[in-house]
Amino acid sequence: MSSKLKVGFLMFPYMTALDLTGPAEVLSLVDGNQLYFVAKDLAPVVTEATYSILPTHTFETCPQLDLLCVPGGPGQQRIMHDESMLQWLARQGQGAVWVTSVCSGSLLLGAAGLLRGYRAASHWNYREYLEKFGALPDPARVVHDRNRITGGGVTAGIDFALQVVATIHGEQEAKDIQLMLEYAPQPPFASGTPEEAGSEAVVRVKARLASAVKRLSGESRIASS
Amino acid sequence: MSSKLKVGFLMFPYMTALDLTGPAEVLSLVDGNQLYFVAKDLAPVVTEATYSILPTHTFETCPQLDLLCVPGGPGQQRIMHDESMLQWLARQGQGAVWVTSVCSGSLLLGAAGLLRGYRAASHWNYREYLEKFGALPDPARVVHDRNRITGGGVTAGIDFALQVVATIHGEQEAKDIQLMLEYAPQPPFASGTPEEAGSEAVVRVKARLASAVKRLSGESRIASS
Repeated sequence: MSSKLKVGFLMFPYMTALDLTGPAEVLSLVDGNQLYFVAKDLAPVVTEATYSILPTHTFETCPQLDLLCVPGGPGQQRIMHDESMLQWLARQGQGAVWVTSVCSGSLLLGAAGLLRGYRAASHWNYREYLEKFGALPDPARVVHDRNRITGGGVTAGIDFALQVVATIHGEQEAKDIQLMLEYAPQPPFASGTPEEAGSEAVVRVKARLASAVKRLSGESRIASS
Repeated sequence: MSSKLKVGFLMFPYMTALDLTGPAEVLSLVDGNQLYFVAKDLAPVVTEATYSILPTHTFETCPQLDLLCVPGGPGQQRIMHDESMLQWLARQGQGAVWVTSVCSGSLLLGAAGLLRGYRAASHWNYREYLEKFGALPDPARVVHDRNRITGGGVTAGIDFALQVVATIHGEQEAKDIQLMLEYAPQPPFASGTPEEAGSEAVVRVKARLASAVKRLSGESRIASS
């Protein structure tokens, strides 16, 4: 069951806390896994959920990871051209056994050149931009293509992480963790995808997502521009 | 739609990060809500997911909250007799419009005397202990009794928070947030409850949960003893 892994998460301002926490919770429960929370420097990183997390490592001090995981969030567009971050992702991505993301984190993997020719998932509102990086957008909630495993928007990170554990550590370990986390979801509404929510909701939510990004960047640059 | 709320979360060492982050993510997306992350002091609080979160307020500096939310986790048993924390919970619980919890956080509400005569949820492995505090254990994933809203284990916090938003801010707001978070879960296995997972898995997971608590406390004191 247990090949112990060095699991590292990219951290950046206004990342979505739940993109990170779903996988971090699941992967931390695998006995022996060591988690790394990696940012440009060790200053606290503010998340979309308004709380701040302390990084444990910088791009310089983080060892080669076995599993690289990149979360997304409204802050993703602001760092799309950050050279030190892109170089770190590219370097880690070449050496890692598994290269993974949740939500719009896949656009960061793409910008680092790590998804060319790979099928990949992303948040429904950003999925189409994957094409600009040579990736093949896939609407599945979790997409596994060779050693790339990518999840859809935010809460997909929990389904994603359980699949990662099943793939690497075996089904029994994934099922036990699912029980530990009482993961038998009962969404109160059928509103989790654009198809379910309907076009009026999609218009409202697209506007909210755009204004969250705009508030941060002071401009409406989109992913790859 | 928007009555703005002061939403506060109790923070303590070895809390389950996902107990906090599900509701914090959902409730932070309601326009105008102000979130408070409240601990004994402002030192970083280490979570079960191994990362540390910075509190924003102490028991002394936190204003009266509209919505109090108490997460759980392996650290819960260690603080069951912490007088300053229990007094803060009792005081906030008397003044708050909504008194809520996720996972074993309901045992902390119980210890503070806030669940006497109320139906309440908890993580499946700790639910029975609610009786010691005069609460009525309810196996539902989200339990709403007067102004108490309590969620089951860990991931139940997302279902819980969407129901809270629907109750306070209206269904449309909850549905829009569900779409924002792409919450259309696809658990890879049917293993999220004791009934689904089966008795062998339950034995394994109970042992893991007990040893996580034991590692922290150096003794196997249970919740209310």
